[in-house]
Amino acid sequence: MAETLYDFGMIGLGVMGSNFLLNMADKGYKAIGFDLDASKAKKLEEEATPGTVVKGVNTLEEMVKQLDKPRRIMMLVPAGKPVDAVIQNLLPLVEKDDIIIDGGNSHYVDTLRRLEELKDKGIHFMGMGVSGGEEGARYGPSIMPGGDFAAWKRVRPVLEAVSAKVNNEPCVAYMGKDAAGHYVKMVHNGIEYAIMQLISEAYDLMKRALGLSNTELAEVFRKWNEEELESFLIEITSKIFLRKDQDTGKEIVDIILDEAGSKGTGKWTSQDSMDLPVSVPTIDIAVAMRIISDYKEERLAASELYQPKIKPSKGNRDAEIKRIKDALYFSTLVAYAQGLNMLHKASTELNMDIPLADVVKIWRGGCIIRSSLLEVFYKVYKKDKTLSNILLNKIIARLVKKTEKNARAVAKLAMQNKIPVMALTSTIGYFDAYCSANMPTNLIQAQRDFFGAHTYQRIDKKGIFHTEWNEEVVQADKHHATTENPQTPII
Amino acid sequence: MAETLYDFGMIGLGVMGSNFLLNMADKGYKAIGFDLDASKAKKLEEEATPGTVVKGVNTLEEMVKQLDKPRRIMMLVPAGKPVDAVIQNLLPLVEKDDIIIDGGNSHYVDTLRRLEELKDKGIHFMGMGVSGGEEGARYGPSIMPGGDFAAWKRVRPVLEAVSAKVNNEPCVAYMGKDAAGHYVKMVHNGIEYAIMQLISEAYDLMKRALGLSNTELAEVFRKWNEEELESFLIEITSKIFLRKDQDTGKEIVDIILDEAGSKGTGKWTSQDSMDLPVSVPTIDIAVAMRIISDYKEERLAASELYQPKIKPSKGNRDAEIKRIKDALYFSTLVAYAQGLNMLHKASTELNMDIPLADVVKIWRGGCIIRSSLLEVFYKVYKKDKTLSNILLNKIIARLVKKTEKNARAVAKLAMQNKIPVMALTSTIGYFDAYCSANMPTNLIQAQRDFFGAHTYQRIDKKGIFHTEWNEEVVQADKHHATTENPQTPII
Repeated sequence: MAETLYDFGMIGLGVMGSNFLLNMADKGYKAIGFDLDASKAKKLEEEATPGTVVKGVNTLEEMVKQLDKPRRIMMLVPAGKPVDAVIQNLLPLVEKDDIIIDGGNSHYVDTLRRLEELKDKGIHFMGMGVSGGEEGARYGPSIMPGGDFAAWKRVRPVLEAVSAKVNNEPCVAYMGKDAAGHYVKMVHNGIEYAIMQLISEAYDLMKRALGLSNTELAEVFRKWNEEELESFLIEITSKIFLRKDQDTGKEIVDIILDEAGSKGTGKWTSQDSMDLPVSVPTIDIAVAMRIISDYKEERLAASELYQPKIKPSKGNRDAEIKRIKDALYFSTLVAYAQGLNMLHKASTELNMDIPLADVVKIWRGGCIIRSSLLEVFYKVYKKDKTLSNILLNKIIARLVKKTEKNARAVAKLAMQNKIPVMALTSTIGYFDAYCSANMPTNLIQAQRDFFGAHTYQRIDKKGIFHTEWNEEVVQADKHHATTENPQTPII
Repeated sequence: MAETLYDFGMIGLGVMGSNFLLNMADKGYKAIGFDLDASKAKKLEEEATPGTVVKGVNTLEEMVKQLDKPRRIMMLVPAGKPVDAVIQNLLPLVEKDDIIIDGGNSHYVDTLRRLEELKDKGIHFMGMGVSGGEEGARYGPSIMPGGDFAAWKRVRPVLEAVSAKVNNEPCVAYMGKDAAGHYVKMVHNGIEYAIMQLISEAYDLMKRALGLSNTELAEVFRKWNEEELESFLIEITSKIFLRKDQDTGKEIVDIILDEAGSKGTGKWTSQDSMDLPVSVPTIDIAVAMRIISDYKEERLAASELYQPKIKPSKGNRDAEIKRIKDALYFSTLVAYAQGLNMLHKASTELNMDIPLADVVKIWRGGCIIRSSLLEVFYKVYKKDKTLSNILLNKIIARLVKKTEKNARAVAKLAMQNKIPVMALTSTIGYFDAYCSANMPTNLIQAQRDFFGAHTYQRIDKKGIFHTEWNEEVVQADKHHATTENPQTPII
């Protein structure tokens, strides 16, 4: 008799891979997983829900030959070389029309390259973002697939089955062409960096300027999570402050070293934004702050040399906490605006056709940046699918205007108190620049033309102009050429 | 009789190339230049100082065969493909031991690639930064050569002759191995972006919050240029405010469109800093602000929607101007600190051996960011050549402490007045983070471990730790593995 053919194969049975596969099995799919580590393959089977069909194997061949055709194979392995290695090992085993899904955090440029390489071979390759951590993978992540639309249609049922649900709607949707899935996930993580930095600044303020204890902080974040700020990150933050270390009995948050790690997605978001170009300063700063956090020794030396004194705020503490809440709301909103604006620009500039309404829809559940704000964004984008920046929407504007004043007050308090709030001040600066009909950049253009003959445009007539700043003014035509001149790039 | 053999050849006779060559001829070198554009070759000869030996030709062959051997050839062409094209055209014409210098703003990664390509052929290739604009090229630029040390020794006399001089010392020195020359120039431009942005913020404040006229602004910057802020950029800024448009009689600065252009070097500095990694937030923000400046239409729409009202400051105007001067001094100093810290890190991480003392020494004259501050930095680095960040030096600390308070006051004024000063607030935030013995990043590490099992370090014991945040605490060994787990990169 014929042996069982499996519906879906998973390469890499780490916590994410095995949880994702067990999640599929629970939804009635026959799931098979491969990992070189025999113990992981064994563990997969042990953890399977009784009655589900789950198998773990230790060779790629075993897995591939037991998959129903055309095959659906997903990998959850570290970004970079491991992904290319898996693809190379798979190629001799797979056939035309098989689907290979990279569910890791690959940089979208790598995904574009792999799409090219696999296209001719008739293999359907998909870059797919998965967010939600271990819990999410097991009980419902937010899933961001992109690329081959035909392949999407064939994996859609299983992905919808395993994804998180919000109002019974699955948190998975087609994110666009080519590498759109990984691009959207990258920007998701960039926004995640920004929000985590903003929360840490609020924590710093309440701890150092207002003198709140961890117990009090946990209570503040617990309350915030029942109000406008409701979100996964606020929720886990309140839990973090309550955890004690088993051995020492100390509150864990206080014994964690303040050097932040990172996996690259936040950095890529900043770097790629500058290439588009689009401005995401709050994400840039979140990346910068994680880097500074690693200068532990220099920071100790600097604190010795400059002896910053934090004056505890004399204001009404509850009133200050309310202001900080508004500041966090304002800056979180503006951080989302920057990231979504980046996706809007990438959608056209990189020809990915990213459906913004679907992006915020599937971010409402399962993912790390899920928050009650996403519901608002979904309403906004449903009405205006081509909105370039949510700050231009009237509903958003009302939320901004309600919290803007307190954001400025908090930034002033922090700067007075020598508490670093670069992400908060960057959201304010971004907002103020965005609302400036005229920026002082006219001076920068004058300076560039002065020392480098880079030319400038005028507000009163068309054309490209240059001024001989040390002599008289001359007109466009004569100097139009300077824009092509070899010297211009070298200043 | 033998025809004249020339000492130095220049490819690309744009304003920079021809000025650089005429400068050489004035110093007694027999100079020959090539440009496909016959008029430029002709113009070169016409502009030569009587009695100097200058020739312009229209084919590369003509130029190469009339150069004394081993040849010294420099190109000043736009970065990117043009540089590769010139190299390809030169290869059949040059011989072993000839020197080819790329004096443009090439990205250092391209320079590394070209060094590899030319090494085997026995050609000495040098990446060299040149700063100073047209004036500088003609009468003395700051020159940043790097790479082949043997080649440096052979071009040193001519480069020293043409370079700017400070206290009779030439503003040229060997910047380090491989692509160090272009790397140092890139960071120079990154600092340039930051300072220009900071100046534009001071301008915005004095214009919109204090209501200064262009004439008054010119006077303020003129005075500043005679005091601690003395620098090329402050000097030209004061001149810019005085210039009137010939046709309309309007002050030119007011009719220049506020959309800033850029040539990429600032962007590269930000992007490459994140790869090192090193934190240069003020440069990141300067790049972000130039990008926002291009959102003209969106900014007009946003200003309609949010109607920001600028309340003119009620404080004593001269006192406010003094504060703004201190804020500009403080933030300029911190911007230099970020850029120099980046060079310090690159020197070791990219194995370039960049001599920081020589860098600030040759930046004292000729280049766009020359300022009286460089003299201070030179003294500092002469005493401590391996200083990682100038903020850790006592002399610098005194300057910082003198101006820090007013920087905070100005930032508060700007935030209150809805004037975007993201670069200023980023220098304050960077400084406050740098002076924080403890940052709130411990919370970020807790969050990352909560949702992604990314693990953390502790302040009270060695090892890598993970907490099952929804259960009990567990110890390192068991969870050490999680750092290698496939799931970690995908959150």
